[in-house]
Amino acid sequence: MEEHQISTFIEYANSIAIMVFALSGALTAGRYRLDPFGVIVLAAITAVGGGTIRDLIMGVEIFWLSHNDYIYYIVATAVVTMLFVRHPNHVPMRILMVVDAFGLAMFSVLSAQKALDYQMTGLMAVIMGTITGVAGGIIRDIICNQIPLLLRREVYSVVALLSASLFVIFDGLGLSENVSLFVAMLGGLLLRLAAIYWHLSLPAFAID
Amino acid sequence: MEEHQISTFIEYANSIAIMVFALSGALTAGRYRLDPFGVIVLAAITAVGGGTIRDLIMGVEIFWLSHNDYIYYIVATAVVTMLFVRHPNHVPMRILMVVDAFGLAMFSVLSAQKALDYQMTGLMAVIMGTITGVAGGIIRDIICNQIPLLLRREVYSVVALLSASLFVIFDGLGLSENVSLFVAMLGGLLLRLAAIYWHLSLPAFAID
Amino acid sequence: MEEHQISTFIEYANSIAIMVFALSGALTAGRYRLDPFGVIVLAAITAVGGGTIRDLIMGVEIFWLSHNDYIYYIVATAVVTMLFVRHPNHVPMRILMVVDAFGLAMFSVLSAQKALDYQMTGLMAVIMGTITGVAGGIIRDIICNQIPLLLRREVYSVVALLSASLFVIFDGLGLSENVSLFVAMLGGLLLRLAAIYWHLSLPAFAID
Repeated sequence: MEEHQISTFIEYANSIAIMVFALSGALTAGRYRLDPFGVIVLAAITAVGGGTIRDLIMGVEIFWLSHNDYIYYIVATAVVTMLFVRHPNHVPMRILMVVDAFGLAMFSVLSAQKALDYQMTGLMAVIMGTITGVAGGIIRDIICNQIPLLLRREVYSVVALLSASLFVIFDGLGLSENVSLFVAMLGGLLLRLAAIYWHLSLPAFAID
Repeated sequence: MEEHQISTFIEYANSIAIMVFALSGALTAGRYRLDPFGVIVLAAITAVGGGTIRDLIMGVEIFWLSHNDYIYYIVATAVVTMLFVRHPNHVPMRILMVVDAFGLAMFSVLSAQKALDYQMTGLMAVIMGTITGVAGGIIRDIICNQIPLLLRREVYSVVALLSASLFVIFDGLGLSENVSLFVAMLGGLLLRLAAIYWHLSLPAFAID
Repeated sequence: MEEHQISTFIEYANSIAIMVFALSGALTAGRYRLDPFGVIVLAAITAVGGGTIRDLIMGVEIFWLSHNDYIYYIVATAVVTMLFVRHPNHVPMRILMVVDAFGLAMFSVLSAQKALDYQMTGLMAVIMGTITGVAGGIIRDIICNQIPLLLRREVYSVVALLSASLFVIFDGLGLSENVSLFVAMLGGLLLRLAAIYWHLSLPAFAID
């Protein structure tokens, strides 16, 4: 695959990740009976919350300020969700979780790449990747008054950490950026799919 | 009305909006039995939270850093609330909601104006206006462990969206800034007052 | 004591404060049965959340971006907590609260100092100190779905306010920076210890 095709693929994948996370926010909004505008707000926070916090911490322009299209994708996703989803049983949850796993791995790896581009250390790149992968979902759950599930099971945040770490390691080993991107995403994706398929969870840290 | 009078009016209105939002935060604090300092913290977060997030995203100086007087207004509002309010029945809630509607429309329109001043697109100006209008109240409700009411009913966030949108539209049509400001605020205010008077709500998006 | 010794002391104390706050986050995570990675995330947010918000508002580089060691301290604290703490009774809570009081006073005073270094007004320096002292704990409690205790009792946030204020006052009176730092920390520490020892609380503001 040529570089042009790869960068086109990345752009598509990034947009898909935003829509998947927006869908996740809209579905959560439906469970808590938000009004239509609240649904759009929650979809937007879930989709861009992680990347916004990353860019604030890095001190760079917020990524969606110059991307009107991301806003359109989010609004369209929320509206389509409201029009067509009435019963969660109608959503093929398995498919949704797989696509969400794809988005999670993408966001984490692309954020680590962005951090390295800005000359941050490998450790900070891993942290930026993890923040981008998980912060949107944490804020979504906080608004809906839940303790974030992704901090409690299904190795969700480990996937963000692993994907970003793999990219930083491969990049440090001198592999080409494209190979590093793909292998890191694939590694995170496989871990997440395995966790979904076999219901893997880390043991909880519980103080009695 | 001359330009000088209008800018004086705007300054007053901005300060009033901050005090009204501080009052809303202090009253919420009283329902959850915070200590006096917690009351001031919650009043401050409610009053300046939205504008702070807006300025962080825009990458400009936080608006209250060079305005000691906003801090004084907030502390004074919280202290007066603690001294004089003991029973919510003693507060004329109708008057409070009307003044709050005024603050909501003001904040949203003035933020949209600020965004356009910084050469942001109309879409981003509307988003900045909406964030400023609703974020403070969302954080207030999150701290008090509630699912934000304003995402669920009373077309609250629609008012922020509409006010900011009207300003952007009028400004784009070439109307004078002052006329745009006033008509946009008036439009948002009337929608909010209508929603309060007739108990208007959008239908909830509910997944069974 | 010479200046060199003092600045070394401050550096140590700052690292200790970060570890103490990380410990507080990790213990809270254990009560809510987060998974190991969730424990690290909550420890990190508690430890650096306040300083991160302070730096965002001040518009300066986030303090931990160029300090990999802070990240190591946090991860080490979380891991050690998970390995050795199983029953809260095993933790000498009194000692923890005393060390936490030290961290609270340190963070508040050092933040006020940073703000004055950046030419902010005394009022803003006090606000920055208060934010740094309390924001991490507020976010920790929000994630765990509690109304932040530190807004409700034990004069916790008053200690942050008092420590920062004392430093600003002494600095304004022309005392040497080192003396101002020590006396301000001591003042905050003593108030907090007194509150712990005699179970002091401010009366709640309660609307019936």
